[in-house]
Amino acid sequence: MEPNASNNMQPDNCLEITPMEVHKVVPPPHRSTIQKLKSRLKETFFPDDPLLQFKRQPLGTKWILAAQYVFPILQWGPNYSFKLFKSDIVSGLTIASLAIPQGISYAKLASLPPIVGLYSSFVPPLVYAVLGSSRDLAVGPVSIASLILGSMLRQEVSPINDPLLFLQLAFSSTFFAGLFQASLGLLRLGFIIDFLSKAILIGFMAGAAVIVSLQQLKSLLGITHFTKQMGLVPVLSSAFHNINEWSWQTILMGFCFLVFLLLARHVSMRKPKLFWVSAGAPLVSVILSTILVFAFKAQHHGISVIGKLQEGLNPPSWNMLHFHGSNLGLVIKTGLVTGIISLTEGIAVGRTFAALKNYQVDGNKEMMAIGLMNVIGSATSCYVTTGAFSRSAVNHNAGAKTAVSNVVMSVTVMVTLLFLMPLFQYTPNVVLGAIIVTAVIGLIDFPAACQIWKIDKFDFVVMLCAFFGVIFISVQDGLAIAVAISIFKILLQVTRPKTLILGNIPGTDIFRNLHHYKDATRIPGFLILSIEAPINFANTTYLKERIVRWINEYETEEDIKKQSSIRFLILDLSAVSAIDTSGVSLFKDLKKAVENKGVELVLVNPVGEVLEKLLRADDARDIMGPDTLYLTVGEAVAALSSTMKGQSSSNV
Amino acid sequence: MEPNASNNMQPDNCLEITPMEVHKVVPPPHRSTIQKLKSRLKETFFPDDPLLQFKRQPLGTKWILAAQYVFPILQWGPNYSFKLFKSDIVSGLTIASLAIPQGISYAKLASLPPIVGLYSSFVPPLVYAVLGSSRDLAVGPVSIASLILGSMLRQEVSPINDPLLFLQLAFSSTFFAGLFQASLGLLRLGFIIDFLSKAILIGFMAGAAVIVSLQQLKSLLGITHFTKQMGLVPVLSSAFHNINEWSWQTILMGFCFLVFLLLARHVSMRKPKLFWVSAGAPLVSVILSTILVFAFKAQHHGISVIGKLQEGLNPPSWNMLHFHGSNLGLVIKTGLVTGIISLTEGIAVGRTFAALKNYQVDGNKEMMAIGLMNVIGSATSCYVTTGAFSRSAVNHNAGAKTAVSNVVMSVTVMVTLLFLMPLFQYTPNVVLGAIIVTAVIGLIDFPAACQIWKIDKFDFVVMLCAFFGVIFISVQDGLAIAVAISIFKILLQVTRPKTLILGNIPGTDIFRNLHHYKDATRIPGFLILSIEAPINFANTTYLKERIVRWINEYETEEDIKKQSSIRFLILDLSAVSAIDTSGVSLFKDLKKAVENKGVELVLVNPVGEVLEKLLRADDARDIMGPDTLYLTVGEAVAALSSTMKGQSSSNV
Repeated sequence: MEPNASNNMQPDNCLEITPMEVHKVVPPPHRSTIQKLKSRLKETFFPDDPLLQFKRQPLGTKWILAAQYVFPILQWGPNYSFKLFKSDIVSGLTIASLAIPQGISYAKLASLPPIVGLYSSFVPPLVYAVLGSSRDLAVGPVSIASLILGSMLRQEVSPINDPLLFLQLAFSSTFFAGLFQASLGLLRLGFIIDFLSKAILIGFMAGAAVIVSLQQLKSLLGITHFTKQMGLVPVLSSAFHNINEWSWQTILMGFCFLVFLLLARHVSMRKPKLFWVSAGAPLVSVILSTILVFAFKAQHHGISVIGKLQEGLNPPSWNMLHFHGSNLGLVIKTGLVTGIISLTEGIAVGRTFAALKNYQVDGNKEMMAIGLMNVIGSATSCYVTTGAFSRSAVNHNAGAKTAVSNVVMSVTVMVTLLFLMPLFQYTPNVVLGAIIVTAVIGLIDFPAACQIWKIDKFDFVVMLCAFFGVIFISVQDGLAIAVAISIFKILLQVTRPKTLILGNIPGTDIFRNLHHYKDATRIPGFLILSIEAPINFANTTYLKERIVRWINEYETEEDIKKQSSIRFLILDLSAVSAIDTSGVSLFKDLKKAVENKGVELVLVNPVGEVLEKLLRADDARDIMGPDTLYLTVGEAVAALSSTMKGQSSSNV
Repeated sequence: MEPNASNNMQPDNCLEITPMEVHKVVPPPHRSTIQKLKSRLKETFFPDDPLLQFKRQPLGTKWILAAQYVFPILQWGPNYSFKLFKSDIVSGLTIASLAIPQGISYAKLASLPPIVGLYSSFVPPLVYAVLGSSRDLAVGPVSIASLILGSMLRQEVSPINDPLLFLQLAFSSTFFAGLFQASLGLLRLGFIIDFLSKAILIGFMAGAAVIVSLQQLKSLLGITHFTKQMGLVPVLSSAFHNINEWSWQTILMGFCFLVFLLLARHVSMRKPKLFWVSAGAPLVSVILSTILVFAFKAQHHGISVIGKLQEGLNPPSWNMLHFHGSNLGLVIKTGLVTGIISLTEGIAVGRTFAALKNYQVDGNKEMMAIGLMNVIGSATSCYVTTGAFSRSAVNHNAGAKTAVSNVVMSVTVMVTLLFLMPLFQYTPNVVLGAIIVTAVIGLIDFPAACQIWKIDKFDFVVMLCAFFGVIFISVQDGLAIAVAISIFKILLQVTRPKTLILGNIPGTDIFRNLHHYKDATRIPGFLILSIEAPINFANTTYLKERIVRWINEYETEEDIKKQSSIRFLILDLSAVSAIDTSGVSLFKDLKKAVENKGVELVLVNPVGEVLEKLLRADDARDIMGPDTLYLTVGEAVAALSSTMKGQSSSNV
């Protein structure tokens, strides 16, 4: 350590450790393969350790805890009070006033009869109130899942020519979506939705918002012959090719209500206390526009209306589910895509509000709740439902305390279904279009996109891919492309791991990246590298090439500076969390390669698993002699420097 | 640091750093996005820095170096001596004696006319001698690529009913294989072949060896009506259902030559000096068996022979290539699969012998050489060729010094093509079958499989999947399944990164895994975790849950031991090599979550890129205050302990 010793003014330099003080690298305590497999499986599937609370409890308590685990209502139900109910009834009525017009609108987005949207706002919230663990989630149909369900089914079956089959396929898709969601939860494979990163979701939602808004051009402009495609180009060309069908009455009405709704939204965003302004606006619009149409008999002047709706509660639909036949593939595919998308939305919303109010939402449990809700829904004339972003926010702002607000909403929808359906006969479609546009505009998150641009350019590219993929290709393909790029990035990180060159921070035994800490200095005769990734088949070739290049570059520089050549190559393995058989042979190859250059390979701090595997290799002794394995870089440098000194003095 | 101070008998404890000595974590030197992109691209595509040698050279030298880079023959050609030639001629003749019978056999394996195998041993070696950088590679057709080419094309076109089309498709596939290989090299995407790990290759090769050997049952048993399928089950059932077709003369002859060839192989394996025994055995068998058939007119007694072969050199075949039409998809797919498989074999063989003789083989350059060789081959009646395992080993043992041994082999094959073809008329197919079986048995590597079982159980499973996938499903699917499992493992590692709990090794400022180093001790009030993976969208949810669980578990244990509760959560980020936007928000969420438990979040040693992205977040100051970012765990613990002491004394 001569070169730094001169710079070093501190009396006791930690680096000056005598060889006696060097700490041994020991293999980790022995565990059998079964034990390892068990702990690996536990980490993979039960990272949250759901059984922790059951430990050290008497049997009776265990049963109660288990029942509470399955039915969260048993957890909060017994402590439910009138005070909580007062809050829940206000928020429940508020979201009901939003859920009724949105339910009708979203059902139309999915090419389903409007009443199915209301059915879907009645049964699923009741199921969720019993099974769900989020207190803020407002359950019902949502825009994106409706859009995807409709667009995927329309590719094969026409909702106009064959409405019954279309309805059957929608219910069947809902069944498979629920089945898939529940199985993900049951098999604890919830991490699959983690592959939809924040960047993907922001791009995807913005793209979906654009697509959904464009679809509303049909009702906003009053066009009757509209394209069935979803992309930006065909929709716009269809809208402008049918300019003769535009109805000024519809456009005027749509424009007025759109301005009203957007203004209401703006007020609520400015002052969160006035949440009821935007929450009530859709219902007010529906009532107002219905009265207007009724008063002026506007349905005869080019304004299309919903028309007669059936009264009564959800009819059973289990006999309508398709479990075989030619459409089974389509139904399963649609169920998978809508299932995963709606699950992502539901879980994300649940987690967001849980974090705000500081309680836990168990992802896998939520998946089972949402899945079961959709399976039951598919048997009672409901289509895919989940926790909606916009309505949950309103629910939260309106002061919801428990899932009882969902029950209140559900009862309100029930009353509507039983007694108020005739009132919707004259509701114009254009208002429903305006309500959808206002709802989905909130899905475009510009500030988050800017933040992503600032932090990570690659994530921004992924976001753009999702966005443009959705608006120009298709909703599913845009999503698939973005996920593929994200996974490719992860694989690229694994294939091209970072290797950092370390230098000593003078006066300490700390070694840090030379290119980051400018005061760190090289130690002559040593090349110290830190490998920052698990070593496996995908990167051994690269690592070997890269390390040899580090040596070559270093020697070229040393030639110029006329310094001594490298004697030791120290690899800091602290960050190598795992290794496989290819990785083990890397060290063998590397040792051979550097020995030809007269350099000795020294390993520092391999973690337990890596050390075990290195030791298990046939030629372990070759790779790791007693002088080539150290616990810290500092100790390795100190010990090897003293042997170097010893050798050079004996040579003299 | 009180609890350890008592155990610590050393006079100067490094952990007792006064707060003044704490080292600052500084952001890395600024680099623009373009600079970062450039260095990232360089690391990804030019890890070996091929332009390093051009630096600081005069222009003339640069031109010479460039020419040598493209044509390695210019590098070793000028220094070529008669002494080297003597070695090369011996090794060249040796591999020729192996290449001629193997060429004929492998062409039959691919359902191609036997002469195509000889054509393919003539042109490609000449091309490789000019372009290739390996000195030991013996170029020609190989068993696995022949098997795949044949089996993939046979699925669509019958080589018996439509031999001309089959031949055209084989050449076209060769063209696309070469094009694909050369583009991989040119675009520097060579890392794609790294995804075929050693474990996959061992399983795959063993499976392919079984499949290839089973195919030889046709010629070894003398069956005329044999299945066209490849799997274990159909082939065995076909062999035993046609028991009436078995010919005892063929079986006897096959058995004798198989025993002879295996004995020769055994001798050479025992004594590498006697390499010529196994190298010459196939040619001896061919000559002997041909004489036997000719002498006894055995072709009339149930022994099938090759028959008349055309004389003359490779006819041009560029007019036979298919660039459009209904078979284009098949041809491209076949080209891709055989291209990547033969590339893997060629590169692996080249690297193995380069490592033995201590010279460098540039992967991307080799890909271009092999690719160009196949493109030129496809225009001169050759099918897919690469560097063969078995023949390269013989070449190396026979003392090959340069690629001239390939030229010698090529000339020998040329002489054969021009003058000796009539001699092969009576060569029996059963001997060719015996030669193939002997060659592919060497591909089954039991010791390597045992080694994999010892080191890494998961790799062993991957190997078994490749093996059973190949023998029971199909060659391509077996390979695809094994690659998919390997990639899934990598993704699982990323999704479920390790978190280690660190403890202090008494008497030092070293912190290591508590579950690995049993003498490491916890420091009361601190929970120190090390995260061992890049933090990204795929693992943020897991990491948050897991870290919260660490805190809960730790507090449960502390409750029992009646120790003080956690005050600080220290996250050692040394091993976090990268982060994305989701990762940045993890720290925000985590800070909120632990603050609710009265715990402060402290970060230690984020690497340059991670630190930069954390600082760029809008609320960077929230995450990283002045007291929550340290350079080492030791310094963090020392500094925070002193503030704890200060607080508790001021409270008193």
